[in-house]
Amino acid sequence: MKTGSDSDVDVSCASWRLGVEAHNLINWQTVPLKCQEYIASYLLDGQYRSDSKTVCREAYFYAKKLNLTNRDIFIFDVDETLLSNLPYFANHGFGVEPHNKTAFSKWVASGEAFALPETLKLYNKILSLGIKVVFLSERRLDQKDVLVKNLKDAGYPTWEKLIVRDPASFGGDDTFEYKSAERVKLVGSGYRIIGNIGDQWSDIVGRYKGFRTFKLPNPLYYS
Amino acid sequence: MKTGSDSDVDVSCASWRLGVEAHNLINWQTVPLKCQEYIASYLLDGQYRSDSKTVCREAYFYAKKLNLTNRDIFIFDVDETLLSNLPYFANHGFGVEPHNKTAFSKWVASGEAFALPETLKLYNKILSLGIKVVFLSERRLDQKDVLVKNLKDAGYPTWEKLIVRDPASFGGDDTFEYKSAERVKLVGSGYRIIGNIGDQWSDIVGRYKGFRTFKLPNPLYYS
Repeated sequence: MKTGSDSDVDVSCASWRLGVEAHNLINWQTVPLKCQEYIASYLLDGQYRSDSKTVCREAYFYAKKLNLTNRDIFIFDVDETLLSNLPYFANHGFGVEPHNKTAFSKWVASGEAFALPETLKLYNKILSLGIKVVFLSERRLDQKDVLVKNLKDAGYPTWEKLIVRDPASFGGDDTFEYKSAERVKLVGSGYRIIGNIGDQWSDIVGRYKGFRTFKLPNPLYYS
Repeated sequence: MKTGSDSDVDVSCASWRLGVEAHNLINWQTVPLKCQEYIASYLLDGQYRSDSKTVCREAYFYAKKLNLTNRDIFIFDVDETLLSNLPYFANHGFGVEPHNKTAFSKWVASGEAFALPETLKLYNKILSLGIKVVFLSERRLDQKDVLVKNLKDAGYPTWEKLIVRDPASFGGDDTFEYKSAERVKLVGSGYRIIGNIGDQWSDIVGRYKGFRTFKLPNPLYYS
């Protein structure tokens, strides 16, 4: 049984989370401290998985009704879309600690991120429809080898393209600009982006965002 | 105490609601029947108000930091933004019944919609910052007199413009096109849309959508 006070926190933390998902709360740095336990429960007790399932099912229902061509691609973001870094965030306060680039890079280098199960299902279904998949990642070029191995280990054996950030060719630190620029290149080389799924709004807005976009939940960080 | 089964419904109905708010589920006709009780509780037990408060506070925090000019406007949608039709929907199955235009028009003609309390606060704060407000409504020209009285009765005494649908000038039934076209006119006559709040994604996407947009929750209908 919750006390009145815990209940109030749950209500307001649920509002914070909804505000994030509906793109009302932007440019935030960390999860509110009072919401740490709420967010941990959200991620671990089934609601996060259920929310992800609803999004992935909708993406599949959409894709299977399309008249497809052989230049059609479905774009998947990587972190918190194909792969989960939850083990890292569970050890770092579930988003309430300021982002630690060094510690996170070390975690990434371990190559131990696991597949998000609902995205993995969607990936297999998209492939079974004959649609090519492109992975558009925030990871850097020097992290690519580890990422390739991590993706294969996690259950993603194949892809049309895996795009990572090359600091030499795109110096900016802006996800939105980077992803838009890469999508422009994809369309320029003849692909048609029929779908695009990510956990950040910066994945799914901007130029050539895709005929339809899908926002997976992510209450851990904003980029 | 919930049974296991009720709990599962709550989890999946929460995912349905999040899918709607994050614009993953689109063009839906009615609330899933199994979610009727869940949606009623959501609306009546405090979460809906808390979610609305988070959005309206963010809109105010944003607006108060701006360098304002005297041509700045903040756009408010009307139904389920300024005014609530909850008494109607409570009598019509909380969104699980197919939309009944005749019955809804009759309710609208009664002029008894009440102010959504968090939007009312935001309205007063936006006015106190010296920003003009424009109400961009789905209501028709023949419903305007009732709407004016309803708005004043509900606590909205003043506005820069109240825009309603004139079937003679815009025959289409598409909210997105209608609202985009009206915003183009506003910008054409010199206004600068610094903010735009509504409960439907069709209120806040498209041409001149506003420098920043805010999505209020609405699990009752999609338009």
